[in-house]
Amino acid sequence: MQMGLVGLGKMGGNMRERLREAGHTIIGYDTNPELSDVEDLTAMVARIDREPQVVWVMVPDRVVDPVIEELAGLLGEGDVIIDGGNSRWVHDAPRARKLAEKGIEYLDCGVSGGVWGITQGYALMVGGEETTVAKVQPIFDSLKPAGEFGFVHAGDHGAGHFAKMVHNGIEYAIMQAYAEGWELLEAAGHVTSVRETFNSWREGSVIKSWLLDLAVNALNEDEHLDRLAGYAEDSGEGRWTVEAALDLAVPVPAISNALFARFASRQDEAPAMKMIAAMRNQFGGHAVKDAAAGPEHVEAAPGEEPAHPAEQ
Amino acid sequence: MQMGLVGLGKMGGNMRERLREAGHTIIGYDTNPELSDVEDLTAMVARIDREPQVVWVMVPDRVVDPVIEELAGLLGEGDVIIDGGNSRWVHDAPRARKLAEKGIEYLDCGVSGGVWGITQGYALMVGGEETTVAKVQPIFDSLKPAGEFGFVHAGDHGAGHFAKMVHNGIEYAIMQAYAEGWELLEAAGHVTSVRETFNSWREGSVIKSWLLDLAVNALNEDEHLDRLAGYAEDSGEGRWTVEAALDLAVPVPAISNALFARFASRQDEAPAMKMIAAMRNQFGGHAVKDAAAGPEHVEAAPGEEPAHPAEQ
Amino acid sequence: MQMGLVGLGKMGGNMRERLREAGHTIIGYDTNPELSDVEDLTAMVARIDREPQVVWVMVPDRVVDPVIEELAGLLGEGDVIIDGGNSRWVHDAPRARKLAEKGIEYLDCGVSGGVWGITQGYALMVGGEETTVAKVQPIFDSLKPAGEFGFVHAGDHGAGHFAKMVHNGIEYAIMQAYAEGWELLEAAGHVTSVRETFNSWREGSVIKSWLLDLAVNALNEDEHLDRLAGYAEDSGEGRWTVEAALDLAVPVPAISNALFARFASRQDEAPAMKMIAAMRNQFGGHAVKDAAAGPEHVEAAPGEEPAHPAEQ
Amino acid sequence: MQMGLVGLGKMGGNMRERLREAGHTIIGYDTNPELSDVEDLTAMVARIDREPQVVWVMVPDRVVDPVIEELAGLLGEGDVIIDGGNSRWVHDAPRARKLAEKGIEYLDCGVSGGVWGITQGYALMVGGEETTVAKVQPIFDSLKPAGEFGFVHAGDHGAGHFAKMVHNGIEYAIMQAYAEGWELLEAAGHVTSVRETFNSWREGSVIKSWLLDLAVNALNEDEHLDRLAGYAEDSGEGRWTVEAALDLAVPVPAISNALFARFASRQDEAPAMKMIAAMRNQFGGHAVKDAAAGPEHVEAAPGEEPAHPAEQ
Repeated sequence: MQMGLVGLGKMGGNMRERLREAGHTIIGYDTNPELSDVEDLTAMVARIDREPQVVWVMVPDRVVDPVIEELAGLLGEGDVIIDGGNSRWVHDAPRARKLAEKGIEYLDCGVSGGVWGITQGYALMVGGEETTVAKVQPIFDSLKPAGEFGFVHAGDHGAGHFAKMVHNGIEYAIMQAYAEGWELLEAAGHVTSVRETFNSWREGSVIKSWLLDLAVNALNEDEHLDRLAGYAEDSGEGRWTVEAALDLAVPVPAISNALFARFASRQDEAPAMKMIAAMRNQFGGHAVKDAAAGPEHVEAAPGEEPAHPAEQ
Repeated sequence: MQMGLVGLGKMGGNMRERLREAGHTIIGYDTNPELSDVEDLTAMVARIDREPQVVWVMVPDRVVDPVIEELAGLLGEGDVIIDGGNSRWVHDAPRARKLAEKGIEYLDCGVSGGVWGITQGYALMVGGEETTVAKVQPIFDSLKPAGEFGFVHAGDHGAGHFAKMVHNGIEYAIMQAYAEGWELLEAAGHVTSVRETFNSWREGSVIKSWLLDLAVNALNEDEHLDRLAGYAEDSGEGRWTVEAALDLAVPVPAISNALFARFASRQDEAPAMKMIAAMRNQFGGHAVKDAAAGPEHVEAAPGEEPAHPAEQ
Repeated sequence: MQMGLVGLGKMGGNMRERLREAGHTIIGYDTNPELSDVEDLTAMVARIDREPQVVWVMVPDRVVDPVIEELAGLLGEGDVIIDGGNSRWVHDAPRARKLAEKGIEYLDCGVSGGVWGITQGYALMVGGEETTVAKVQPIFDSLKPAGEFGFVHAGDHGAGHFAKMVHNGIEYAIMQAYAEGWELLEAAGHVTSVRETFNSWREGSVIKSWLLDLAVNALNEDEHLDRLAGYAEDSGEGRWTVEAALDLAVPVPAISNALFARFASRQDEAPAMKMIAAMRNQFGGHAVKDAAAGPEHVEAAPGEEPAHPAEQ
Repeated sequence: MQMGLVGLGKMGGNMRERLREAGHTIIGYDTNPELSDVEDLTAMVARIDREPQVVWVMVPDRVVDPVIEELAGLLGEGDVIIDGGNSRWVHDAPRARKLAEKGIEYLDCGVSGGVWGITQGYALMVGGEETTVAKVQPIFDSLKPAGEFGFVHAGDHGAGHFAKMVHNGIEYAIMQAYAEGWELLEAAGHVTSVRETFNSWREGSVIKSWLLDLAVNALNEDEHLDRLAGYAEDSGEGRWTVEAALDLAVPVPAISNALFARFASRQDEAPAMKMIAAMRNQFGGHAVKDAAAGPEHVEAAPGEEPAHPAEQ
């Protein structure tokens, strides 16, 4: 079938390619003219046949609304807009209602798979009405992996992004699990080859997984990850997952602590730890580290003999 | 090759079967005569040819030492004892030294794979000397899955159990990750079929894994797990992993909180939460729940009007 | 000075009494006629002298907006409304702007102190403009404790509630700290009298605090808290604190885990733990507990011998 | 009364002074001759009258055993050795048994109070036999604060150090609570003066405490703690507390996460976060930070267009 595709970054660009190889006619638009098939959204829509026109939006969260607003001016009754980005699920139902005023149908679609999706297929979690899903099903069928898995119509508007959000929350905690284990093995020194140990777990073990395979890939490139900084971004879904958990009074210690570890990794000096150091110094005269000093320099409290090692 | 195998429970029994199918001669001993091939350890050892005699011990942690002590009296120079149980790694080096006094060689072998190992093969993490590993390699090769993964000679005595311990620590946190996500999806109600969503993730998604496959198996048997109590045991390795992390000053928030969630699941009434309730009542006159009362019954502090909902 | 006071529950009622003892003329209104000084808000406002009219609102979060809306119809240029409840700080700035359209000035005031405030004074954290704060200062001075502490003009609109929110977040984690320590001492059995130990810490120790004093009060009434259920409510500020931390990428493991412990205390059966149990059963044939069974009943996986104690 | 005191560091030195001011005769020994009253332990013991001889040991954990062994050679039937350091409670019962062979009595005494103890008194938690405690009671009475609190005979050998260990575990979590709140207030910017807000909480609030007073002291010296590094040591008791909790299956999320935050504060580059970054890069082509680069430098995966901001 024909489809417009807005946003041809790493995800959108690969999806265009996978869909074309499956025989679909994809008209892609990106603000980067080197990636774009057309000059603007108007030109893109003009090149898609009606009955109905389907446009997939694959752009960063912050520009989803302006893009969809512009598309809403170009599309009409029975047409379909799919937001395939990592958008916040709470916006989906209001957005669907607003588009419905013009007769435009809306789907939210969580997409997983990263740079591997182009060959392996993408896991798709879709929210919206059954009849709308049916209109886009050929696209979903080509994007998803071959076989019985990788696609779910998760529920009404918002359910797709909600499912994707939870997926990513789980992902944060699983990554943290492997990362903690890896750090522990590296720190202990009992295990001669941590990389070989991770590698051995890829079959037969209870923790075999695709993320483990990827971890081994990374270790094969850089055995002790010396070339990487201990610095991890987060991209929203983890935070939203914890927020949803707060709303629903669901305990999520693994997911939230995985997120906090990333926050901490981005702090050069953790302010909370300054406060801990300050209080220790106040009650115990414990040595503190001067902000300007290197890691070796510690300074006793003024007028004190060298710090007693115990915290009393 | 020939090998004695002590302990024919769920793990040991399956391993005997897998090894026999691979052509090895396995003499199994278990305290349960219905499972055992021989009457006692002496009879077992008598049926294994020398050059060298190899015995695999697959028994609960608390009986490893007496079993090995008895075996040490039956074996000699160049013979090999393998402890394949979930034993604590700190005991391996002393045990190896003690056996070495009699010329007996020792390997510690962490074994993963559960009830699926019989068909899929077991992941093996081995600690000990290279020459000893070589003596048992035909057994390892038959126990491990086909293909390039599933076996590692992780290092010296203790490295096998250390690697297995960390493996299980990781496992605890990964299971917690899926469990938190599942509870959240079930609680939210936005996703019509949580089971179908989990199922869809089995291909294409970043979090596809064998544990996810197993989770879906469980949901296929009991969609909302209504037949299960929210009660999870732990079996030692998780605790040992956290202890190792404490020794090494490695932060393990995901693993430790996964463990604490299991501890809490086994408490009918969390004592800490009684203290929280007590303090809230003391400062705010907040309603508390009587220990004997059902979930609906709350009681205001004596002499107080009904509790203000806010915590001031 | 004169002031209207809306909401005469545990907090508001005590504040009225403390203010009257300090010589202020307080006209209180409550929906409960037995507590109320007047029939309705109109009557309340009619009894306060102008120049300016000041009304303090001390009602649950969910009814703050309707109460303030009604008051806005009764007050005018230069009058002051104070929201002293545990309201969400994000609503303060918009509320202030809306009231400013009618010339009504607004303050948000976090109030701590619980049932002890009537005698010891309340800790007050105020947000809003300096000139407005000055109009209400005589009230603040009478509500706060004697001495130099207990009052802060924390910043502009919202800063008072924000400070109170963080105060409560800290409170959650401190309570959890004592609660964990108490549970540990009770569980260990090494310490003959846990109550006496807590009591001893009230002077000389690093962890002496008012919350510790309250904990001892509670233990004096019920040494092992046998009469209390292990069930702890939360009232919003803890969740908002974690949400603010997520927005600001601040790691808050102690506060968030304290909150999760309360969530978990209110679950009869933790769904996440059902999933953990289900997965353990799937890979290891581990015994699971039947939902209907008592704590002693465990059931092996079908067709399995009794579960091996180790998690493999 | 008379007493020998071994170890005249920050704690021991202050205790000597407080005890002398109370009229006791204290013979102090330290390896530092500038602090020591005598040349060696023999000289110290020689200067204490019999009936019985009492020696208080106040040295780092690692030298407790050699010091006590030497003392055991100098003391005899009915004499008393007190270990007042932050020693591990598990060693107390064996140590007491060993000393009992020579008729020497033993007490373990947890001491809290830090540098303030000299004037405010120390909180003391004592383990051992009632009759032994009675022999030292005059010393305890002088060390503890005036008033009814600050001393507990917590139980048998080990109970004193166990109680002190839990005290310090609680302390870690309380400090973390204030630290998280402080970081949050500083990060938010809604509260004009975080220091003034902390200061205001010192009376009237639920979270007033001595640690809060100390935090304000520190902020008065350095309002934003700019002069301190975000680097916090830990001194053993926190780890032992978590280990005890693991043994007893008590969930301690606040204490353990407080400890992990300190561990993390001491890592220049968190290895676990390198692994997180590595996995993100593998599945998503997410930008990673080069270990050598400054905070601004991020590098896209090779051959990729700039990273899509979302984690898919």
